[in-house]
Amino acid sequence: MADTSRPARPVLGQNQYGKAENRVVRITRQGATHHIKDLNVSVSLSGDMEDVHYSGSNANVLPTDTTKNTVYAFAKEHGIESAEQFGIHLARHFVTSQEPIHRARIRIEEYGWERIEHGGEGAHSFARTGQETRLTQITYDGTSWEVVSGLKDLVVLNSTDSEFWGYVKDKYTTLPEAHDRILATEVSARWRFNWSDDTRPMPDWETSYRETRRHLLAAFAETYSLSLQQTLYAMGSRIVERRDEIDEVRFSLPNKHHFLVDLAPFGLKNDNEVYFAADRPYGLIEATVLRDGCEARIPADLTNL
Amino acid sequence: MADTSRPARPVLGQNQYGKAENRVVRITRQGATHHIKDLNVSVSLSGDMEDVHYSGSNANVLPTDTTKNTVYAFAKEHGIESAEQFGIHLARHFVTSQEPIHRARIRIEEYGWERIEHGGEGAHSFARTGQETRLTQITYDGTSWEVVSGLKDLVVLNSTDSEFWGYVKDKYTTLPEAHDRILATEVSARWRFNWSDDTRPMPDWETSYRETRRHLLAAFAETYSLSLQQTLYAMGSRIVERRDEIDEVRFSLPNKHHFLVDLAPFGLKNDNEVYFAADRPYGLIEATVLRDGCEARIPADLTNL
Amino acid sequence: MADTSRPARPVLGQNQYGKAENRVVRITRQGATHHIKDLNVSVSLSGDMEDVHYSGSNANVLPTDTTKNTVYAFAKEHGIESAEQFGIHLARHFVTSQEPIHRARIRIEEYGWERIEHGGEGAHSFARTGQETRLTQITYDGTSWEVVSGLKDLVVLNSTDSEFWGYVKDKYTTLPEAHDRILATEVSARWRFNWSDDTRPMPDWETSYRETRRHLLAAFAETYSLSLQQTLYAMGSRIVERRDEIDEVRFSLPNKHHFLVDLAPFGLKNDNEVYFAADRPYGLIEATVLRDGCEARIPADLTNL
Amino acid sequence: MADTSRPARPVLGQNQYGKAENRVVRITRQGATHHIKDLNVSVSLSGDMEDVHYSGSNANVLPTDTTKNTVYAFAKEHGIESAEQFGIHLARHFVTSQEPIHRARIRIEEYGWERIEHGGEGAHSFARTGQETRLTQITYDGTSWEVVSGLKDLVVLNSTDSEFWGYVKDKYTTLPEAHDRILATEVSARWRFNWSDDTRPMPDWETSYRETRRHLLAAFAETYSLSLQQTLYAMGSRIVERRDEIDEVRFSLPNKHHFLVDLAPFGLKNDNEVYFAADRPYGLIEATVLRDGCEARIPADLTNL
Repeated sequence: MADTSRPARPVLGQNQYGKAENRVVRITRQGATHHIKDLNVSVSLSGDMEDVHYSGSNANVLPTDTTKNTVYAFAKEHGIESAEQFGIHLARHFVTSQEPIHRARIRIEEYGWERIEHGGEGAHSFARTGQETRLTQITYDGTSWEVVSGLKDLVVLNSTDSEFWGYVKDKYTTLPEAHDRILATEVSARWRFNWSDDTRPMPDWETSYRETRRHLLAAFAETYSLSLQQTLYAMGSRIVERRDEIDEVRFSLPNKHHFLVDLAPFGLKNDNEVYFAADRPYGLIEATVLRDGCEARIPADLTNL
Repeated sequence: MADTSRPARPVLGQNQYGKAENRVVRITRQGATHHIKDLNVSVSLSGDMEDVHYSGSNANVLPTDTTKNTVYAFAKEHGIESAEQFGIHLARHFVTSQEPIHRARIRIEEYGWERIEHGGEGAHSFARTGQETRLTQITYDGTSWEVVSGLKDLVVLNSTDSEFWGYVKDKYTTLPEAHDRILATEVSARWRFNWSDDTRPMPDWETSYRETRRHLLAAFAETYSLSLQQTLYAMGSRIVERRDEIDEVRFSLPNKHHFLVDLAPFGLKNDNEVYFAADRPYGLIEATVLRDGCEARIPADLTNL
Repeated sequence: MADTSRPARPVLGQNQYGKAENRVVRITRQGATHHIKDLNVSVSLSGDMEDVHYSGSNANVLPTDTTKNTVYAFAKEHGIESAEQFGIHLARHFVTSQEPIHRARIRIEEYGWERIEHGGEGAHSFARTGQETRLTQITYDGTSWEVVSGLKDLVVLNSTDSEFWGYVKDKYTTLPEAHDRILATEVSARWRFNWSDDTRPMPDWETSYRETRRHLLAAFAETYSLSLQQTLYAMGSRIVERRDEIDEVRFSLPNKHHFLVDLAPFGLKNDNEVYFAADRPYGLIEATVLRDGCEARIPADLTNL
Repeated sequence: MADTSRPARPVLGQNQYGKAENRVVRITRQGATHHIKDLNVSVSLSGDMEDVHYSGSNANVLPTDTTKNTVYAFAKEHGIESAEQFGIHLARHFVTSQEPIHRARIRIEEYGWERIEHGGEGAHSFARTGQETRLTQITYDGTSWEVVSGLKDLVVLNSTDSEFWGYVKDKYTTLPEAHDRILATEVSARWRFNWSDDTRPMPDWETSYRETRRHLLAAFAETYSLSLQQTLYAMGSRIVERRDEIDEVRFSLPNKHHFLVDLAPFGLKNDNEVYFAADRPYGLIEATVLRDGCEARIPADLTNL
């Protein structure tokens, strides 16, 4: 009979470890023309890790320092064709080379660079674009793959073709309805690929990113908006409809409020010309758009992918 | 027969909206002695929101501006006894007052203040503590409650009693073993209360926070560490064992590396005296510790709660 | 005879006040085509302000709230042709309309936007460029003007054509010489215009910015660099030589180190391909380049520790 | 006769270089009790540096990497008694050991740590205080010293005893007068010591910091304020009057506005209880307070836009 007077020891739940934010820059030379890939790579490993938590035995632990070294070595051995392809090389390596590791998740941020145009020769000078940060997350359990890519920090604005009215009014409602307002947001988006099986051909990751971003921006620009939710759905459904390789899109869209300044006290009329761009608070609109029949797998809270 | 040549429209998945980062400061006066509560409150509502996404109809949408107004009105009507209690008032209101709203999630950051000691009279002068940020998240679906509290930005360091050796070595391993190292981390923790039912008495939220924090720090200080995972488990299990109201703890612990500087080139011996505090990369150790028999509900990625 | 036993009261030195970081967005409509100016405006006023410091009398104080209102009203009354022109309108107003105000300094950050290209009609959709932040500072004392413009956050990189050798070696020197390295920096620059007198025509501020930025980038790209100081001087002298309206340029250039990763432990050769992009510490190179015969007036410290 | 058709070459003005943000942590052991100093050290050197700018010759350049090494070696050789004393050691070294270097400026940020109180033995566990960052800047030209210390990020608040009325009103003024408001600011302060000569004894740097901070806070708490300028002067004059070693204090004080929320639309009275803590814009009040007869040397801009 069990001694129920002594409570059982607390148990270990989901756990993962690795080296985060390995900054790797890879230069590739084609004669005098150089190419640059600039990544921030985070490794996260899971598996038979009870002992290290319960007793401090590191017998199953590949040091996080080693995961860092692997990132740099792989940048040489495999090159960096795309962030997605690079993450797939890394994830496969960790899961297949170490028995105690059952799952690897690789998260990558990619920073864009454009060539500096100047009168001189050569093509080895770059300026960082500074616009969105490209993202990808590769998860592999030895059997199937999950690839979620996306972007963050992309600030967009429509100076008209946005309204907001017809909403619920309760005792705490004071907002006047708006029939012509600025709509601005900082897009944070993640999209999940339906590729999961090594035996199927991979998407062309670079083309996919470029086209998905293009559709996202076009849908933002072309939607006459009655609510930011409507614009969100327009962006997500356009991606799912136009990109066969993507089954699911998740957005986190802060409504970056631009308030029309009241200039009447100064005898001036503000005909949708002068706005105060507010920091906080902000509306926050989040939703998933799915290909019909597909399962949602991207977590609801994605600000930290 | 269905026309399968025309693909079905993409469908809406999980969605939520509300006003984020409402900064509310509440002053309470007891004669000449003032008390201060300083919160950053984010509201997130879910329910019957298909129409607003598909067509832009706001008929079911309570404006995010109204959720902001409610936060400020409730700070007056209910006061702010604790962040948890305040979040419970708000969540209950949104779910019970608006039929289309089926779930409310309130996230709160709380900033600490301490009194300025000085020779003068009165007690209305404060300095912000600047140490950890206290956190809570209240979720209510009209039936049951989930309360997850925690903290972030708490930087701690042991200058000895930490080792790291006996780990897996592969072809990419270069790290030398360490038998006396600095162990430092910036604690991000979340703990879930087992209170979920209105008919049961609530925990004393303020006492619970103070004691949980105390146990967390004591376990960090008292653990002779062979790995950061071991320290993590020691902190989590101590909380679960000492605080009956808590069933689950999740940690995200960056290993803030302090590298012993090689002073040999300058003819100097570095006897664990001079360290370089590195920024990136950093090890990242994440795990859940659970009361035996309880279910894990805190998401694996919590850096953004 | 003075009573020297009682020390004189501490005296007030340089002082200034105003509203900082007024975020103003100005939309201008040409039919369906919209134009956007997005500024962050800070006002700083000086003058007869002894009383308010010594006794709290606000009789000479124009509230900072009023300076904010003025920014928004002027965005309507004068429009925003350029950040410089807008700052000149504001500075002139404060100095000439209030007798106690003897000097006004207006600092402006400007954020760039580009049009979103898409198949639809209309031209009211924008994406923030995210690259450099444009800067200007206007100072006016009722008689003469000082205009200093510039930029910050512009990250640039040459993947070759940079060396570093032949330097001083002392007992603390361990750095190996480099004959082919990455040179990267985040440009923070300020340039002072020689326009100071209302009776002379102003420069074309928009053209001046565009051309100065172009010369700065071209000099960075075209300079075969033996030190970041040499590159700095090349950028500054090119601006002074090509832009007659500018007499002085100040740079603050962090040397964003990209360290060649040692892959030898893994049996790999790193032929200038794989780099670790470090955060801290970084070299910091700062200098002024002047038109011959001109006086330096830009302060030495563009950044604060 | 000079050939005036060819313009003179642009000339080099003030310049400086060195390694910025060297993060050094120094542990000192007294038996089982450990002490910690945690600094961020930036070195800036000036001297005969024309050649490196004009031609790229590094013959006079001590590498920034060497200045980094020196910081770490000195942490061992001299220990870190105080940030000021450590900076003095470094500045003297650079100026006296290298002929081309004529001036050294050392800037240091210091982060505070407090001991973790717990039931166990030992005293090697610390939590970062997180409150203000302590600052010092040491400048040495081979003859005389300038020491400026200070702090930043110290957020303070008075919940009453603050008014603002009786100010100038012009056509852009809409602000109502306030007779009981919150006064809050984030103190950034610098104070200059009158010690400048090696032959005189140095102040006790640690005591001076502790006492100066104490007077600053006491003056903030005890001043019944009619304007933030008045509070600023009270803080500065108290320091100058009580601390003989300090001749000059400079403050940069953002007025962190806490706006009383209008609850009338909800049928509620806001009796100085519920405030909205705003981010931007903010008032910015800056001034110097001087010992009578002393010269001002701290630059006017402690912060950059």
